[in-house]
Amino acid sequence: MTTSTIHHLLNQMTVKEKIAQLLQLAGPFYKGSNQQGQITGPMADMPITKDHILNSGSVLGVSGAAEVISIQQKHLEENRLGIPLLFMADIVHGYKTIFPVPLAIGCSWDLDLAKQSAEIAAKEAAVSGVHVSFAPMVDLVRDPRWGRVMESTGEDPYLNSLFGQAFVKGFQKEDLTRDFESVASCVKHFAAYGAAEGGRDYNTVDISERQLRESYLPAYKAALDAGCEMVMTAFNTVDGIPATGNKELMRDLLRDEWGFDGVLISDWGAVKEMIPHGVAEDEKEAAKKAILAGLDIEMMTACYAQHLEELVEQGEVDLKLLDEAVIRILTLKEKLDLFNHPYRGASIEAEKEIVGHADHRKISRELAAKSTVLLQNQNQTLPLDQNQKIALIGPFADSFDLLGPWAGVGVKEEAVTLEKALKDHLSEDNLIRSQGCSIEKITQSQLDEALHAASEADVVVLAVGESSSMSGEANSRTNIQLPQAQLELIEAVAKTGKPVVTILFNGRPLDLHGVVEHSDALLEAWFPGSEGGNAIADLLYGKINPSAKLSMSFPYNVGQVPVYYNHFNTGRPKGAPDAQEHYVSDYMDSPNAPLFPFGFGLSYTQFAYDQFELSAEELTLDAEIKASIRVMNTGSYSGDEIVQLYIRDISGEIVRPMKELKDFVRISLEPGESKTVHFSIKEEQLRYHHKDLSFSSDAGKFEVFVGTNSQENHSQFFTLTKKGGQKL
Amino acid sequence: MTTSTIHHLLNQMTVKEKIAQLLQLAGPFYKGSNQQGQITGPMADMPITKDHILNSGSVLGVSGAAEVISIQQKHLEENRLGIPLLFMADIVHGYKTIFPVPLAIGCSWDLDLAKQSAEIAAKEAAVSGVHVSFAPMVDLVRDPRWGRVMESTGEDPYLNSLFGQAFVKGFQKEDLTRDFESVASCVKHFAAYGAAEGGRDYNTVDISERQLRESYLPAYKAALDAGCEMVMTAFNTVDGIPATGNKELMRDLLRDEWGFDGVLISDWGAVKEMIPHGVAEDEKEAAKKAILAGLDIEMMTACYAQHLEELVEQGEVDLKLLDEAVIRILTLKEKLDLFNHPYRGASIEAEKEIVGHADHRKISRELAAKSTVLLQNQNQTLPLDQNQKIALIGPFADSFDLLGPWAGVGVKEEAVTLEKALKDHLSEDNLIRSQGCSIEKITQSQLDEALHAASEADVVVLAVGESSSMSGEANSRTNIQLPQAQLELIEAVAKTGKPVVTILFNGRPLDLHGVVEHSDALLEAWFPGSEGGNAIADLLYGKINPSAKLSMSFPYNVGQVPVYYNHFNTGRPKGAPDAQEHYVSDYMDSPNAPLFPFGFGLSYTQFAYDQFELSAEELTLDAEIKASIRVMNTGSYSGDEIVQLYIRDISGEIVRPMKELKDFVRISLEPGESKTVHFSIKEEQLRYHHKDLSFSSDAGKFEVFVGTNSQENHSQFFTLTKKGGQKL
Repeated sequence: MTTSTIHHLLNQMTVKEKIAQLLQLAGPFYKGSNQQGQITGPMADMPITKDHILNSGSVLGVSGAAEVISIQQKHLEENRLGIPLLFMADIVHGYKTIFPVPLAIGCSWDLDLAKQSAEIAAKEAAVSGVHVSFAPMVDLVRDPRWGRVMESTGEDPYLNSLFGQAFVKGFQKEDLTRDFESVASCVKHFAAYGAAEGGRDYNTVDISERQLRESYLPAYKAALDAGCEMVMTAFNTVDGIPATGNKELMRDLLRDEWGFDGVLISDWGAVKEMIPHGVAEDEKEAAKKAILAGLDIEMMTACYAQHLEELVEQGEVDLKLLDEAVIRILTLKEKLDLFNHPYRGASIEAEKEIVGHADHRKISRELAAKSTVLLQNQNQTLPLDQNQKIALIGPFADSFDLLGPWAGVGVKEEAVTLEKALKDHLSEDNLIRSQGCSIEKITQSQLDEALHAASEADVVVLAVGESSSMSGEANSRTNIQLPQAQLELIEAVAKTGKPVVTILFNGRPLDLHGVVEHSDALLEAWFPGSEGGNAIADLLYGKINPSAKLSMSFPYNVGQVPVYYNHFNTGRPKGAPDAQEHYVSDYMDSPNAPLFPFGFGLSYTQFAYDQFELSAEELTLDAEIKASIRVMNTGSYSGDEIVQLYIRDISGEIVRPMKELKDFVRISLEPGESKTVHFSIKEEQLRYHHKDLSFSSDAGKFEVFVGTNSQENHSQFFTLTKKGGQKL
Repeated sequence: MTTSTIHHLLNQMTVKEKIAQLLQLAGPFYKGSNQQGQITGPMADMPITKDHILNSGSVLGVSGAAEVISIQQKHLEENRLGIPLLFMADIVHGYKTIFPVPLAIGCSWDLDLAKQSAEIAAKEAAVSGVHVSFAPMVDLVRDPRWGRVMESTGEDPYLNSLFGQAFVKGFQKEDLTRDFESVASCVKHFAAYGAAEGGRDYNTVDISERQLRESYLPAYKAALDAGCEMVMTAFNTVDGIPATGNKELMRDLLRDEWGFDGVLISDWGAVKEMIPHGVAEDEKEAAKKAILAGLDIEMMTACYAQHLEELVEQGEVDLKLLDEAVIRILTLKEKLDLFNHPYRGASIEAEKEIVGHADHRKISRELAAKSTVLLQNQNQTLPLDQNQKIALIGPFADSFDLLGPWAGVGVKEEAVTLEKALKDHLSEDNLIRSQGCSIEKITQSQLDEALHAASEADVVVLAVGESSSMSGEANSRTNIQLPQAQLELIEAVAKTGKPVVTILFNGRPLDLHGVVEHSDALLEAWFPGSEGGNAIADLLYGKINPSAKLSMSFPYNVGQVPVYYNHFNTGRPKGAPDAQEHYVSDYMDSPNAPLFPFGFGLSYTQFAYDQFELSAEELTLDAEIKASIRVMNTGSYSGDEIVQLYIRDISGEIVRPMKELKDFVRISLEPGESKTVHFSIKEEQLRYHHKDLSFSSDAGKFEVFVGTNSQENHSQFFTLTKKGGQKL
């Protein structure tokens, strides 16, 4: 089908049929669904007719080859023009084979593995009938109170952009039309959902346009540059208007300025939410605002279905806008080759073979190990030795709650627990088990038993954390410490004097006071996915040497939030050479710095940096500066190091961040080995949004930092001889 | 002197002399100063010559008639053209007679008394030689971590605007030129200093222009509308550029859009701080940016003094800009009649009589009582009876630390302590004293003694809080509870079972967990000023009935910050009639609401509201709606109630606050008495900044709330028939 045939199809459609294409409903509305007719709660109140369903454009949240085929088949039998349905679902970090949560993947800094994880997710989802994945989520996050930080890759626009692109390429692969093992990707949530005030989900976002463009927009743009087919709107306001009805954001910026011509979908119910937001008096006004703003598909409310026809008839909405939306949806169906292959990759046979394949779990295991951050390792407590007697204690020791929120059709009970994995590594005698406490409660007998177990062991492995229902959507917390029961357990166990290895399972950066001072070694495992236990065992026993680096700062306390590495300097920076004694920007009762900074992560071995050199002191517009540094493995294990390059613009037209990540390289070094790492610095990397929002650089002095994290590094200065970049 | 004579004077000035007018130095630089030559610390590094001093335009922080006269006299003897110096100082909440801190005054909702406090401050300062007060500070505040919230009147743009105007009118009185008991007012800090990220002083501000105009700018504008002569810049960035070098903010908005032609001064050192901010490579660039942006006076750095001449010579700065700045400064000197009366009100004789006058302290005592908020009063614990035996316990019981930060030349030891005041009210037998603890430390013997004292008494009065050095400039806290030692004291004392009246002395809204549940009655006294003890005694014994209402929300905990009453609704408000069960905007572990909301404050009596009526259901552009409500004193004490009117725009072009304070009335009622309060609602009150930043209203539905605070009130709806306001 070509553009002209899509237009031919459009010409045959009634206005009602067109409007119904813009409607997205959940499975229970459809004949052939396993949940057919199980329409409860708010769904039951939707003013949806049989005609709406018959002509609707897409289905939400259904997967499984048999069910998708069944719904599609029945749909095509009854749909007048034979337009197939699009099947969309949240495939956020795996379909059935679950990978670590995205925030963990962000800590891997491993774009290839991230891409592979999306490829596998796409393959499993596609064979199960899914056409579109509502991923990646690339919202920049700076507030760990927000439960959805676990869905993001972190606080850095550049790293988020790279991961966003990797995920899109993994989902969509090379040829969406011919390769039925791919799914279309829908980047979300446009825009700035991560900046919810007070870290409270769905809350107001208020940031400057400069901040929006500089920090929040780049990752969405990067995903689109990678060919992402769809965009989902955010629940929040942007500049005082809900994103879903925000013409400046969608039509002016996304469509006109960026040239995006794919499908724009609302998040669940977000069109109707313009009423409580207070920008629409009723559903009709909400529908009007959404279509005028450029939104194509309305998810799970019926404002379009109920009111668009009248709005068109009354001349309040140009039929052209409706047609354009329909064309975009039909075009996506065509790109996915649904007119020729309405079931696309869905295959009951292939599904059995592919979904949850052992090869997929192998990649998940590798990625989980690469996503686990070693935060502390005093006295080389880690790696452990198989001959040591381990007391495995804590609510996550035998927990299947390893998949984290948004785990597709993943089955918790198919996850490998830490206890299971350790049993595979250890003789029965060397593994003592004790529960210690549950997530939020501890009893004296649990505590007594735990202390007894600890006393019998050579080393204690404490598996603690947040349950998966404590992060993710609508799960914001004002207290970001571990629950009190677990803090009590940790303190008591530490008092035994036995070496303590603490493993954290959680979805957000935590305030780790009460943990860090009582742990000899500390591994941040996040929600590690289907192979979590195995991956952690691989790390504990040194089969794999940790290499992950935090992609989001761990705050010193919640009262310090937001804390992020790429902040500005202020006019009275603490610790500056000529700073005043008292009148500096700081807290009386807390450092300004986080407990663990962006880019931080240890290895079982040690890396030393020297011979940092720049090839020139001056950078011209058409040349580059080569930065090189030698990294030596001075420890006794082979290991990977992620060498990071940051740049600071010393004086700009606009205040610039203290540091901005501009490049990084992963190297592997044997004990005693050294390698020289090379980076190239070009003028393009120095550009930012100026006063007039032009994207350009400033002539002048820059500082370049290379090192092991955002705080510990070597630095040198260079000068950009001439301003470069776009003129407005 | 007329405009032409100022120009005549200007024409005689060399460029060096002009530039020196723009320089503001502290007292020690001047001959005749008591601290002459005591130039230490960063001051000593200032590249200031004798010529700079000789020609400088203004002096910072000197007061006292003798010293001012001495400096002015020596200055005029040596200054070539006989241009007098301007003397400026921080007269924030009183000169010698200290009033409650501004945040407390905000809680009085008493504009007349606020104005009187500024008149008194002006009178005492003027007779002591001060010409300009660096006040009012009208920064909107939403983050109690920030130490400077105590300098603001709170979180509401409308209330801050009214207080800003009251202070300006109090300082400047009717005729600045002829009335030497007045001082010129300098509103600060322009702009949005209160929005410092993370509540950390001097930190980055990032807000949308809409938020800036809607919430933060109104109070500065109101102060200028009241005739305020000067504006001080903020330390923070606004839209990525430090305020002090921000042309859009100062030249475009303040001067061109608002038409402000008074003097613009930097905050201390803020011009040079453009270098660490990262928008100026050196002092020369900082000087250039500041003068181009429209800044007249540079406080305590010498960028202008060192580099402006060269910048003018090189054509980088138009001489016209320098001339304009000088004219503004000379014009202010003329307005203050300094060319005719260079010593203005300074009088060694009058100073003795006026400064700290008993009449002034009487007003301070009244204002302190009116600023103290009764937060809790279970079982009518308050007021006390003189026959009750009181155990007065806690670090503030006999503390002189009652003046709070920025207390002018106030002398702590001249403040009336609570103990002193209670001794005047009680027989010796009825007052038992015990220290309990210090601000941050408690010993077992202190605790034992306190418990013993409590056991002997009928009621315990606990005087606790933050020391004045825990709030104010550069004193930000991540933990906003009382120090642990005091929480321990409170808990232990409460366990005695004796009624506990807790009196809080502090500069910010605190997380009162650990206080509120252990107190029968709770009085928020802030830093109450010179007459603090007397004012509290007046309240404790019912001589005055509390009437204050919070002008800033008290958060439930620090993890919930920012929390303020006039927030937006979000698309998924918690508790809405059709809200989903889980997917709403809330926290898992904390309510969304503050512990005590804006507008909240109890009385010893009770007020009941009924008969809420609107005169019409429709509002037209040229008419008004009368809102009336009956308020009855149903308790047994006469008392004042502040009846508050809020409005919500149900559906706007832009998302609107849940409620906005639009009017309030103070009424006095005897027991059993009732009064009907009338408000009028007009279209102008419904205007806000639209998408195009035009200031206009939306036709449609509005809700009007009238009641005792921002959460408890009666409501009705009306409809605005037609959009009104400016078109752009």
